[in-house]
Amino acid sequence: MLLIKAGGGRDINWDGIARDISYLISREKVVLVHGASYYRDNLASRLSIPIKTVVSPSGITSVYTDQQLLEVFLMAYAGLVNKKVVARLQKEGVRAVGLSGVDGGLWQAKAKKEIMAREGDRVILLKDNLTGRVEEINTELINLLVENNYLPVICSPAISFEKEIVNTDNDWAIAIMAEKLKIRKLVVLFENPGLLENPDDESTLVPRVEKEKIEDYLAFARGRMKKKILGAKRAMEGGVDVIYWADGRIENPILNALEGKGTVIS
Amino acid sequence: MLLIKAGGGRDINWDGIARDISYLISREKVVLVHGASYYRDNLASRLSIPIKTVVSPSGITSVYTDQQLLEVFLMAYAGLVNKKVVARLQKEGVRAVGLSGVDGGLWQAKAKKEIMAREGDRVILLKDNLTGRVEEINTELINLLVENNYLPVICSPAISFEKEIVNTDNDWAIAIMAEKLKIRKLVVLFENPGLLENPDDESTLVPRVEKEKIEDYLAFARGRMKKKILGAKRAMEGGVDVIYWADGRIENPILNALEGKGTVIS
Repeated sequence: MLLIKAGGGRDINWDGIARDISYLISREKVVLVHGASYYRDNLASRLSIPIKTVVSPSGITSVYTDQQLLEVFLMAYAGLVNKKVVARLQKEGVRAVGLSGVDGGLWQAKAKKEIMAREGDRVILLKDNLTGRVEEINTELINLLVENNYLPVICSPAISFEKEIVNTDNDWAIAIMAEKLKIRKLVVLFENPGLLENPDDESTLVPRVEKEKIEDYLAFARGRMKKKILGAKRAMEGGVDVIYWADGRIENPILNALEGKGTVIS
Repeated sequence: MLLIKAGGGRDINWDGIARDISYLISREKVVLVHGASYYRDNLASRLSIPIKTVVSPSGITSVYTDQQLLEVFLMAYAGLVNKKVVARLQKEGVRAVGLSGVDGGLWQAKAKKEIMAREGDRVILLKDNLTGRVEEINTELINLLVENNYLPVICSPAISFEKEIVNTDNDWAIAIMAEKLKIRKLVVLFENPGLLENPDDESTLVPRVEKEKIEDYLAFARGRMKKKILGAKRAMEGGVDVIYWADGRIENPILNALEGKGTVIS
């Protein structure tokens, strides 16, 4: 089974992704996860809802999710983008079914209501944070769909063990999903050619990374890339053999990734 | 199999619906469809998107759906309300899975891009209307979930035969769904005690309606109620034996409906 994660940027080439999946799905089983960060930010801005990012003591940036921002997540991810992606895939003849991590307890997360956050030089405690870290997966539901020739199209948010909807880190979620589904091959598409030594220079692509060394790149990764590195590390620990990081903006983004034209971590 | 439709009003008692379903689902198979009209209107208003209603030459009111309003539908129905309902049901131990009519081609509709609409005394032609009427149902997907002890939680929009997302009339969609799934019993909950002779007076509840006479009530129904009557007529033509229209705002709304305390059409 091939697990594909497509980022939520504006320039992701969904036509190309849909065509690649329609080609691949006759050859192997596929599960798709997508982001929607551009559409989330756009909606939040139209609704005048501020997006507060917090930086953990270890330097990882994430979004502080209160009730109104969680609703923006639901609308942008599970509503707008998920259904548009599903319709686009159906146009290519793919039997796509869109699900959030909430549905059927697909992504079950340990809630972390209180988080430590940096504020200048101090570390403060933030409460009522509606996020969680995915720990369990309803593999039965995913397998049920895949075995019946459906393509699960999955997105955030997740559901906590107490059955509250919680925002979650997608890169961590796909790592856990890969482990529980015993997936060996992972494609991650975003708005970059792959891992860059210098995030401002696309010509500094790192073509190969040994899995033991992936963490070394934390030092010069910025923003979301830190989470992708931690997600990749977790996925490798869970049994993934190879991760393809590649450009989601180009023609045939998935086939390009599988040809090793981005960054191959193995 | 029992098909339940809960309206999209603000005062629908979702706690009560979730508890009733958790009680009923151990006894029979259930499919749930929900609306989200209050949340759609609220979101459209926050985004300053006008909701244009059109009146057909035969006097039926519906929403004129352009691209930006269709996105509001996706966000309010498939995103916000669907996932909140799914999470609420899971809190009661129900294995709820939320799906829109787009997913897996669940609700397949014939698009009607051009609609005739009344404008004062004239009838005009409106183009680029993103709506359709549901004609086919992916019963295979619904049965797959139900047979594996999941509760499908379904909402608008639908997908056209050309694979475009289209807004659709929920009451018509549930009638077609009832027919294709061979459902005999239908519960429809809204913000009224049932069918009222005088829409402004809740004491004028009509407790029993013979199915042959349901159309007689079109004359004194207003707004959305006309569509509910046409949907009920279509459902009866498709083989439904009994339809329970009842109050979705009270304690145990479904059990109350099944006890015949609203309007029973048979």
